[in-house]
Amino acid sequence: MKINKHFLDLQDSYLFSTIAKKALAHIADNPDANVLRLGIGDVTRPLPKVAVDAMTAAVADMGSASTFRGYGPEQGYPFVREAVQKYYAAKGVELTADEIYVGDGAKSDIGNILELFDRDNNIIIPDPVYPAYVDANIMAGRTVHYVNGDEGNGFLPMPDSVGVKPDIIYICSPNNPTGSVYTREQLKAWVDFALENNAIILFDSAYECFISDKSLPSSIFEIEGARKCAVEIATLSKMAGFTGVRCGYTIIPHELEFEGQNIGKMWMRRQATKFNGISYIVQKGAEAVLTPEGLAQCRENIAVYMENAKTIATTMADLGIWHVGGDNAPYIWLKCPQGLSSWDFFDKLLSEAHIVGTPGAGFGVKGEGYFRLSAFNSKENVLEAMKRIKEIL
Amino acid sequence: MKINKHFLDLQDSYLFSTIAKKALAHIADNPDANVLRLGIGDVTRPLPKVAVDAMTAAVADMGSASTFRGYGPEQGYPFVREAVQKYYAAKGVELTADEIYVGDGAKSDIGNILELFDRDNNIIIPDPVYPAYVDANIMAGRTVHYVNGDEGNGFLPMPDSVGVKPDIIYICSPNNPTGSVYTREQLKAWVDFALENNAIILFDSAYECFISDKSLPSSIFEIEGARKCAVEIATLSKMAGFTGVRCGYTIIPHELEFEGQNIGKMWMRRQATKFNGISYIVQKGAEAVLTPEGLAQCRENIAVYMENAKTIATTMADLGIWHVGGDNAPYIWLKCPQGLSSWDFFDKLLSEAHIVGTPGAGFGVKGEGYFRLSAFNSKENVLEAMKRIKEIL
Repeated sequence: MKINKHFLDLQDSYLFSTIAKKALAHIADNPDANVLRLGIGDVTRPLPKVAVDAMTAAVADMGSASTFRGYGPEQGYPFVREAVQKYYAAKGVELTADEIYVGDGAKSDIGNILELFDRDNNIIIPDPVYPAYVDANIMAGRTVHYVNGDEGNGFLPMPDSVGVKPDIIYICSPNNPTGSVYTREQLKAWVDFALENNAIILFDSAYECFISDKSLPSSIFEIEGARKCAVEIATLSKMAGFTGVRCGYTIIPHELEFEGQNIGKMWMRRQATKFNGISYIVQKGAEAVLTPEGLAQCRENIAVYMENAKTIATTMADLGIWHVGGDNAPYIWLKCPQGLSSWDFFDKLLSEAHIVGTPGAGFGVKGEGYFRLSAFNSKENVLEAMKRIKEIL
Repeated sequence: MKINKHFLDLQDSYLFSTIAKKALAHIADNPDANVLRLGIGDVTRPLPKVAVDAMTAAVADMGSASTFRGYGPEQGYPFVREAVQKYYAAKGVELTADEIYVGDGAKSDIGNILELFDRDNNIIIPDPVYPAYVDANIMAGRTVHYVNGDEGNGFLPMPDSVGVKPDIIYICSPNNPTGSVYTREQLKAWVDFALENNAIILFDSAYECFISDKSLPSSIFEIEGARKCAVEIATLSKMAGFTGVRCGYTIIPHELEFEGQNIGKMWMRRQATKFNGISYIVQKGAEAVLTPEGLAQCRENIAVYMENAKTIATTMADLGIWHVGGDNAPYIWLKCPQGLSSWDFFDKLLSEAHIVGTPGAGFGVKGEGYFRLSAFNSKENVLEAMKRIKEIL
C-alpha cells in the first residue's frame, strides 16, 4: 500500500506545543508567578443560558421513547438552518434554508470542501493567516501562492498582489491572527477579481460577530456578485462560545456553479458519503443561541471580550507600538518593540512579565517580527497584563 | 476553477429516497393501514439512562465559569479513550489510549482516512456492502475491485476471490447488509493475506455489539498479526443508540507503518488540520455508556433488538426462505421468494403486507434478488410484521 506522499511535504507545526512547553518551564521556574495567558484563540466565558437550557431539554428528549431521535439529516435539521437564515436576514443577507449546511465546525468544512475541487488549481492564501488553510492544501498536493500582508496594506492584501491565475482564493475577515477587516470596497474588489478569473472564494467568517463598525461587511454575501463566486464558512465557536460544543455552518448559494456543476449539490453528495450530521443536542443549542434572546446573551459575552480588546489596543497606542485589530476583532496584531523577533518578544514577555502571547511567525513568513495578543480572558487579567507590559517596555 | 471530475463518476443513490417515496405513496393510498418499517438501519430505543445523566451534567458544566470547556484535544479527551481501552481489554484486546482516536462517527472516519493513502492503490470491497465505501473511493478517483458475496460463501467472500494485487481491503463484520460474521479462521486468512501483500485492512466493526457467539471475533485485533496491517473503525451508534448523538472511534496500532510512515501519526496530522474534536457533552455521554453500568443498560436495548432478529430469522426458516444473519447481527438477509427481484419483493411486501424493507440491490450488484429486514423496531411491530409475511407467502 502506498501512502499519500504529500503528507511528507507538511512542515511539523510546533507553534502551540512550543508555547505550551515554554510556559510550563517558566511556571516550574517561577512557582509563585501569576502567569497570564493572552495567547489562546479560545473563548473563556461559559455558554449562554439559552444554550444550556435547550441542550438540557434535548438530552432529555433523547432519553424518552416518544421524543428520541436517531440519524438526522446530513445537512442539519431545518430548525437550525432556518435559524441561521434569520440571523443572516437580520443583516440584510437573504438566503434560503437549503443553501445552509450545518457541520461540526469551520475547521472541518474549510478542509473538507477542497475535495470538490481538482488538485490542479492555483490556491491563493494570505500570509499571515490561520495555518490550517495551507496544511489542508499541502496534504492534497496542491501548490499554494501567497498574498502578503504587511504594514503598508494594514495586513489586508489586495488582488493586485496575486501573481498567478487564481482559482481558489481564501479570505479570512476579520483576519486571524491580525484582526484586520476588509472594507466593503476591498471585498468588492476581491469578488470582481474572482468573477473575472472564474475563481472561487472561500470566505472564513469565524470572527464576524466581533464587527462593531456596521459599515464593514460581516458576510461576503453583502457584496454584489458574491453569490456567483463565493462559499462562506461560519461557526458558532466564537459567537456563542461553542468551541467545545462544536457547530458551524457553510453557505453555498444556489447559483454557485463551475464547469456546469452545482457546488452545493457536490457538497451535499460529499457530506452524505462521509458525514452523518451533528448531534441533535448540539443542534438544539445552536437553534437557541440564534433566537433574539440567545443573541442578546451572546452579545453580553462578546462585549466583555471587546472591552478587553480595546484595553489592549489602547495600551499599544499609549506605548507607541504599531498595531492593527482589536476594534472589530478579538485579536491585536502588533509589531514587536525594540526590533525583536516574534520568539524573542515571546521570551521577553514571558520572562519579564509572566505573560504568554503568540509569536506572529507561527502564522506565516510575513508574521515574523509581529505578535498576537488575544482578548479571550477576564477583564481583570487583561488589565493586569497591560499594567505589566507598560512596566517592562 | 476546475472541479474534481471524479464526482461525475458517482452514481446517484436513490435507494432510500425511492423507498421513502414508495412508502409515502402507499400510505396515501391506504390511509388506514398500519405500515411497519423494517427497512431502517437506525436504532429506535431511547438512550441509556447513564448517558442522559452524564450529558445533562456535562451541559451544566458548560454553563458554569469554573467547569466550562473550550477546545478539547482533536484526538478526544483521555477519559473517553481510556474508557474505550477498558472496553477492549474486557474482550482480551490490549490497546494503549493513544492508539484510540475519537471522532463523530464511523462514516466520517472511514471516508476521511482515505486521505492518508495514495490514489494509485487497488481497493478491495465486498459486494454487497454499505455503499459509502465505494462512493468515498470513486470521489477520489480510485479504482474499486469487488469480491463477491453469494449463497456459496454465505456472503463472506475470502481472499482467494481477489483478482488483483490488493492494497486497501475493506472488511465489515458483522456485515451490513447481510448480517454475516467472519469466523476467527476466516479473519486470520484475511490478515495473513494483507500481511503477505503489504496491504492495509480497514475493518468496520459498527455491529460488533450484536455478536452473541463468543467464538466469533468482535475486533480484528483479536487476530494475530492484525496490529501490523489493520485499522479498526468503531462507533457507539448501534451499541449505545448514539446515531443521533454522534460518536465513534478509530483504532490505529502503533506498529502500523507503510513506506516507513506511521499511520497513526499521519491520521493525527490529518485530524489536527481538518477536525477539532467532538462535543465535550457527547464525550461525557460516551464515557458513561462504557462504564459497567452503562454497558449493562446498552445490553438491555441490544437484547430487545436481538430478540426481534431471532423472531425474523425463525420466521424465514419456517417459511423455507434462504437467509443469513440475525443470530449475531440485527439484519436478516434473505433470498427473495418466488424468484422475485429485490424491488419486486419490496413492492409485494409493501402492497400486500404494508411492510417496508430494503431491496438488496441497493447494496451492490450481488445484492439483486435479495432483501434486508432490520430488527430495529419494537417487539410488537416485528411480531405483527412476521404474522403478515406468513399470511402473504
